[in-house]
Amino acid sequence: MSPSVITFLDFFGITVFAISGALTAGHKRLDIFGVMVVALITCLGGGTLRDLILDAHPVVWFEHTSYLLAGILAALSTFFVDRLYRIPVRVLEVCDAIGLAFFVMTGLQKALSLGHSPEIALVMGLMTGVAGGIMRDIVCNEIPLIFHKEIYATAAIAGGTLFLVLRHFQVDPDIAMLIGMLTILTLRLTGIFLGLSLPAFLLSEEKKE
Amino acid sequence: MSPSVITFLDFFGITVFAISGALTAGHKRLDIFGVMVVALITCLGGGTLRDLILDAHPVVWFEHTSYLLAGILAALSTFFVDRLYRIPVRVLEVCDAIGLAFFVMTGLQKALSLGHSPEIALVMGLMTGVAGGIMRDIVCNEIPLIFHKEIYATAAIAGGTLFLVLRHFQVDPDIAMLIGMLTILTLRLTGIFLGLSLPAFLLSEEKKE
Amino acid sequence: MSPSVITFLDFFGITVFAISGALTAGHKRLDIFGVMVVALITCLGGGTLRDLILDAHPVVWFEHTSYLLAGILAALSTFFVDRLYRIPVRVLEVCDAIGLAFFVMTGLQKALSLGHSPEIALVMGLMTGVAGGIMRDIVCNEIPLIFHKEIYATAAIAGGTLFLVLRHFQVDPDIAMLIGMLTILTLRLTGIFLGLSLPAFLLSEEKKE
Repeated sequence: MSPSVITFLDFFGITVFAISGALTAGHKRLDIFGVMVVALITCLGGGTLRDLILDAHPVVWFEHTSYLLAGILAALSTFFVDRLYRIPVRVLEVCDAIGLAFFVMTGLQKALSLGHSPEIALVMGLMTGVAGGIMRDIVCNEIPLIFHKEIYATAAIAGGTLFLVLRHFQVDPDIAMLIGMLTILTLRLTGIFLGLSLPAFLLSEEKKE
Repeated sequence: MSPSVITFLDFFGITVFAISGALTAGHKRLDIFGVMVVALITCLGGGTLRDLILDAHPVVWFEHTSYLLAGILAALSTFFVDRLYRIPVRVLEVCDAIGLAFFVMTGLQKALSLGHSPEIALVMGLMTGVAGGIMRDIVCNEIPLIFHKEIYATAAIAGGTLFLVLRHFQVDPDIAMLIGMLTILTLRLTGIFLGLSLPAFLLSEEKKE
Repeated sequence: MSPSVITFLDFFGITVFAISGALTAGHKRLDIFGVMVVALITCLGGGTLRDLILDAHPVVWFEHTSYLLAGILAALSTFFVDRLYRIPVRVLEVCDAIGLAFFVMTGLQKALSLGHSPEIALVMGLMTGVAGGIMRDIVCNEIPLIFHKEIYATAAIAGGTLFLVLRHFQVDPDIAMLIGMLTILTLRLTGIFLGLSLPAFLLSEEKKE
């Protein structure tokens, strides 16, 4: 896996997570700079935690200052677009799902490239993927998205594991990564859209519990 | 203090904290992988934070991958046992108390073994003991246990200080540690069981405030 | 900028943030050791996070154990004074504002002194300033202060940017820092006192949203 691919995934994940952060903060009626702070926490939190634990200094956005810029621009665009035309809540969940899929893969890649074992790489991938979103929800005093819908951690672990299995069987790393990412995204989007289309089923499930 | 004793305490603390994490997550009706994620945050969060601040890389569960396995197995067992037979909430508090006692001591030991002063070791011990539980409660959107009952930080500080005093007077390290740990556990369990047996007293206290 | 000035600012920031932490914890009816823990999280959280991300080990309170003592003494004093005479909530907000102003500047200074670019220094300053207060509010299960009043992140970013602009134009560092700090403090205090004197305006704003 070339470093440029990791950079690209990081960049993309940062943009969508910044949008999700800006939307969550916007619904709390923060001013423009508050929205920017929450967006940066969301899009840089997971990668920063990953780099601290891997002792991979400088942290990712020190090395690539363009990441900061990407996060800020995405947050500002979201803020202004949301003023003109109210962005539906569903967009937040979809952005979060894309960010999850990208960040799980970059976390996995980075841990593997530093020579860690597959099981540690899986944990680092999971952490990179969920930490930013959890920080966003905690800082905004929301129940973390990871607990709203059933298929969240499941999606991340399934996609990450599939990637590691494919790599074990010598599948081309880029293809393995693409399959892993699509698995996470598909499972998570299924959760989002299925969860909303089957309210009765979920309600009866809840009663039963 | 031999490294193997620290390893053993870490291992035990991880298991009971994983159980407490799994129980808290289970009461939120998370699916099996969500329960696993919360259990891992609970049982590895305190030690990870300690190692980051002490700059003691690799972090504890990178060095001992078996810790990860212990946490996951404890979480899964708890999840399945809890399906068959509803584990009472009291078990969660007792597991949290044991984890607190173990982790305060391992944090103290690790800081001292790296040559830090007793006051910094005390803070690191306290942090190792409470951080995982605080993360568990924050991530599950609960008021941290540390604020439920009165004797929580008090127990950790008392036990840690006693250990340091005993060491200062050349008491055998293993005995000092055992006494420190039992002090934390006794004080905390007293808090749990006394707090529940004296609701009227607590209520009148609250009114007075 | 001499290191002794940074030390002085850190020291002062730690004291006011410890007071704000003790007041928040006090309102949750924690016992004296619980209050101390929350005060330490508030006053050391931001600087610790800054040092971890900058990889500037040992972290600030390992090097200056006196910081720990300052935080603990401030917390204890607040605890006992608050018993005798109920400290008004407004004091908490003012302490938080002073801590914000000091910590933004020390974070900026430290990042610049380690050779980082102005944009990264700005982010590190912002983080140092807001992280302790956010941790305090999260741990106490409160909506972070950063979201209560409109001019919070705005104040920190404005003061930090002004400092960087003044430094760019070769203004004496101490004067630049003083101006930056006063800017943050003035904007934040304006927010606190203006926000409370214009409730009707804010309500109509909210309705419009």
